[in-house]
Amino acid sequence: MKSLLDSIQSPEDLRRLDEKELPRLCQELRARIIQVVNRNGGHLASSLGVVELTVALHRVFESPRDPIVWDVGNQSYAHKLLTGRAARFHTLRRGGGLSGFTLRSESVHDPFGAGHASTSISAALGIAEARRLRGEGGKVVAVIGDGGMTGGLAFEALNHAGSLERDLVVVLNDNGMFIAPRVGAMSTWLSYRLSGRTFNVARRRLKEWLAGFPHWGEPTVYALRRLVESAKVLFTRGVLFEGLNFQYLGPVDGHDFGQLIPILQNARALDGPVLVHVHTTKGKGLACAERDPTAFHGVAPACLDHHHAEEDHPETASFTEVFSQALVREADANERVLAITAAMPDGTGLRPFAERFPHRFYDVGIAEGHAVTFAAGLASQGLRPVVAVYSSFLQRAYDMILHDVCLQNLPVVFAIDRAGVVGEDGPTHHGAFDLSYLSAMPNLTVMAPSDAAELERMLKTALTLPGPSAIRYPRDRAAAPVQKESPPLQVGRGRVVLAPTARPQLAILSLGSMLSSAVAAARLLSEQGIAVKVADARFAKPLDRELLFSLAKEAGRLITIEEGALSGGFGAQVLARLHQEGVLIPVQCLGIPDHFVPQGDRHGLLASLGLDASGIVRVARRMLSLPQSAERPA
Amino acid sequence: MKSLLDSIQSPEDLRRLDEKELPRLCQELRARIIQVVNRNGGHLASSLGVVELTVALHRVFESPRDPIVWDVGNQSYAHKLLTGRAARFHTLRRGGGLSGFTLRSESVHDPFGAGHASTSISAALGIAEARRLRGEGGKVVAVIGDGGMTGGLAFEALNHAGSLERDLVVVLNDNGMFIAPRVGAMSTWLSYRLSGRTFNVARRRLKEWLAGFPHWGEPTVYALRRLVESAKVLFTRGVLFEGLNFQYLGPVDGHDFGQLIPILQNARALDGPVLVHVHTTKGKGLACAERDPTAFHGVAPACLDHHHAEEDHPETASFTEVFSQALVREADANERVLAITAAMPDGTGLRPFAERFPHRFYDVGIAEGHAVTFAAGLASQGLRPVVAVYSSFLQRAYDMILHDVCLQNLPVVFAIDRAGVVGEDGPTHHGAFDLSYLSAMPNLTVMAPSDAAELERMLKTALTLPGPSAIRYPRDRAAAPVQKESPPLQVGRGRVVLAPTARPQLAILSLGSMLSSAVAAARLLSEQGIAVKVADARFAKPLDRELLFSLAKEAGRLITIEEGALSGGFGAQVLARLHQEGVLIPVQCLGIPDHFVPQGDRHGLLASLGLDASGIVRVARRMLSLPQSAERPA
Repeated sequence: MKSLLDSIQSPEDLRRLDEKELPRLCQELRARIIQVVNRNGGHLASSLGVVELTVALHRVFESPRDPIVWDVGNQSYAHKLLTGRAARFHTLRRGGGLSGFTLRSESVHDPFGAGHASTSISAALGIAEARRLRGEGGKVVAVIGDGGMTGGLAFEALNHAGSLERDLVVVLNDNGMFIAPRVGAMSTWLSYRLSGRTFNVARRRLKEWLAGFPHWGEPTVYALRRLVESAKVLFTRGVLFEGLNFQYLGPVDGHDFGQLIPILQNARALDGPVLVHVHTTKGKGLACAERDPTAFHGVAPACLDHHHAEEDHPETASFTEVFSQALVREADANERVLAITAAMPDGTGLRPFAERFPHRFYDVGIAEGHAVTFAAGLASQGLRPVVAVYSSFLQRAYDMILHDVCLQNLPVVFAIDRAGVVGEDGPTHHGAFDLSYLSAMPNLTVMAPSDAAELERMLKTALTLPGPSAIRYPRDRAAAPVQKESPPLQVGRGRVVLAPTARPQLAILSLGSMLSSAVAAARLLSEQGIAVKVADARFAKPLDRELLFSLAKEAGRLITIEEGALSGGFGAQVLARLHQEGVLIPVQCLGIPDHFVPQGDRHGLLASLGLDASGIVRVARRMLSLPQSAERPA
Repeated sequence: MKSLLDSIQSPEDLRRLDEKELPRLCQELRARIIQVVNRNGGHLASSLGVVELTVALHRVFESPRDPIVWDVGNQSYAHKLLTGRAARFHTLRRGGGLSGFTLRSESVHDPFGAGHASTSISAALGIAEARRLRGEGGKVVAVIGDGGMTGGLAFEALNHAGSLERDLVVVLNDNGMFIAPRVGAMSTWLSYRLSGRTFNVARRRLKEWLAGFPHWGEPTVYALRRLVESAKVLFTRGVLFEGLNFQYLGPVDGHDFGQLIPILQNARALDGPVLVHVHTTKGKGLACAERDPTAFHGVAPACLDHHHAEEDHPETASFTEVFSQALVREADANERVLAITAAMPDGTGLRPFAERFPHRFYDVGIAEGHAVTFAAGLASQGLRPVVAVYSSFLQRAYDMILHDVCLQNLPVVFAIDRAGVVGEDGPTHHGAFDLSYLSAMPNLTVMAPSDAAELERMLKTALTLPGPSAIRYPRDRAAAPVQKESPPLQVGRGRVVLAPTARPQLAILSLGSMLSSAVAAARLLSEQGIAVKVADARFAKPLDRELLFSLAKEAGRLITIEEGALSGGFGAQVLARLHQEGVLIPVQCLGIPDHFVPQGDRHGLLASLGLDASGIVRVARRMLSLPQSAERPA
């Protein structure tokens, strides 16, 4: 049988299909998604959950005339397949390939790029307002998950949209499980499906009962019915949106075209802001993903072949795992230690903590700002909250870190995972900026471990500090096994890792994850007859002044290396300190330059940024005015 | 008559007063607040509006056992007067004096520090949770305005609080006018006071009507009444909070102890999260402030003597005024130019724009994140949104600037007011960090004007750029009058402002507001026989490489100066560029060092930071190894 999907080059082709063919199209979409994600890795469960919704949206709305803004965009695979990107879909998340999120440069059907949650309503409202100002028609659609709806930005946008009263359709994709099982009071009222049915029965009985009073006038019956209708909205919890001046439609089954298409047609026909509540099942159509959607949220390549991806280096733990275990040990020893996540209990490694200390664990929803200020409140009472978060998501809480934690000098610990280059998730997910923005915050201690033992010691150090601290580590394996003993570090003290017997011609001051590359580079240079001293700064802030000046004096040339943005980063701090004290030596800073890093393999990306042994050797030889030809890294 | 206020050293003393004495106490509190604010400047209208509420809170709750967290804290003056700070109240907002906001170090009755909006519920929830974990009693209170409630952080916190179900009382101080008249759909349902009354009448009539059907059984009547009660909640819009699992009480008149005290007692007695809706009048008790609360929000000293504060330099406009007029001119010429504020139409100078172009002006509430992403949506459709915002409040939108604007390279213009040292509002309001965090963002052009004409030209430049840009300017007068002609600038090009006839011994590269100090320092140094070249960088990003290297080559010594954090700031960018290209010269960077700047007079604070002519001369002489004694600034 000829593939339906192959016949679709644009949403127009989709709209020409007979409605009876749609289930088969959905089967084909699911098969393609599963096939490519199993090869390339990606967001499987969320994409499978919105296949029917995507098809229905493109049947009812006419993208790009009716722009569709996907929140986060990790569920947009079916959308990509239906909007002219099927032929390139095999390149998903690969270097130079299709993004795993929406991207304006990729298609006119992606009106706004995404990657972080809760932005879609704000962007869609801006798009709707622009179209109104320019006298253009069309309806703007934002599709947002129940998880994204817990973010404050979504609420700010709903509040504004309700007052602007533009033609905007917000589709609430309620899968009852965003990244982890949802939390927060809002989730409670979203789950009133049963109550809605109960209510329908009650309404029918009331109607019958009212029919028994034929002497009541029409106005009275009408008034009572209106009252009951209000109560229905109250029951289904649509009232929150009604209260914000949205017309609330639903909830409907998001896998049933018979419900989906009419409700979307209805939403399209209405004026002003409309919210359509759609229930979907995450992982729909793939039994293992339906059973365990969290495990199939973001998956590694070959996830289905092995069920879970094989470890690349099963003998070493990831930084996440090291943190996970170390935090449980610290919490065992100190009952004041608490853990907070913004909807990422698994990704951040907090699951074991949550299971062992359920009453000291908080999942606040996709609400990084609240996570941080809530932690500040806890810390103000003498507790020791640890906020575990991905670097790029912590950006959402910039002001809360500065205003609520650092200014008040409260001992909150930030455990910052995915700091640096993350790989295939690309520019929205690389943790490039944390060193830069955290280093500027007074009172904050900033650390970066180079291996597992260092991470353990830094966590211990952080939990004994009187003020706030951050530990940032990459999405990678940790170089050393977990230690039994991990005494706290002396704050602001680095360590010499490699000292040549001869006087060094060059020193490398490495921060965190870059140490093994620095040591490898030093060994290569040593083979080329160049003596190099290598030190691990450990602390981006405060800097180890003594170590820095001894390296500067001894070697007279310095390379700094960090897995983060050069602007305002670790190297920039080193330069500032040297100049402040009048030390003038050649310094080359290696890090992420002033552009967004694309998607691709993590180690390939690092190499392309010169953040590997070979890159260091290149710069070292240039500093020593040696030709590059001798460079032969192993 | 003996002063009641003088007899109150702590809230315990207040609780010993007879309830009949409370109105007199309120009069005294108002008189003291008006007297000190008229002398020192401050937040008048908001503080006057909550005098009764403050007294009632301290009567009913027992601070510090029942911690009271004030949102923003600019309304906490009566709270300060009642919690042992009356004797120091005359120092309000002065250098070394009481903060104009809440501050943990100031009193045990300030459980959390504030300054920015919408943090109180998050912090109070953290405090409540900590107390529960430690088995302590007491009820935690958060007092938040209807303005603060529009911030997404408040919603994130309500959502979490509703699911945690801790003992938390949120007092919604609804004054119907936060900083400017409130906006957003949420405000609509908050203003249903009249509807509430209407409803009460309707309920009474329904009751009478039901009484006419004595054959109806009790259950039926009960069910109908319950329905009507639900409808009442719907009417008063308490349902939004009920939907988030808060018990909703109110609304009550916040100036009537007869209503206030019982409802707070009721709230204290209830378990779990409770929201108390209180209506207050901003500026209450001062006729001019009640009439025009916006004018009396934040006031300058002697506001009541002159009604509006006299201008310090009436012959020159403030940067805010220059921006205000320039934006209207640009918008006259280009209908694609739009303006967005987050609840600060007056402070940011957007009022004239709003009056002239009401349909191109957007006040989104205290929601900086949404302001930025909404602007990104507009810009994605070819429009030219200008987001006018204070530097320290823009911190709330860090991720939105990076993720929604810079990554997508959308031409949003950020007009950043209060960049640098703001003065008496202190550390929460100084705009110290924008240069640092914005310079790290790829694709962004960052400018800082040194005078009025430069600001006009930068705005024109920004509005012609294909990508995003930021213009940051201080809370100060602008040095030059408004120009008729203001051609756009060449991007990334600075200018030489002062070139000595002799070969310079030193160059000063100034950014933005520091230029006049740099020129003054150069003149002083010239009088001391030291030739200094002064340049205005204009662009923090991209740097003017050519200018930088010509200064370095010619003078061999460089001072950079900026009104912002040194970490990652303009000077740091200069150092990085010099080293990157292997230029080794002594550079001293002047700016805000790694600590929070306290409150005080703006120019006094700048001098204390070395950011004035005298400070530059000092550093220059040190660089030239000259004794400091010759330093005699005029």
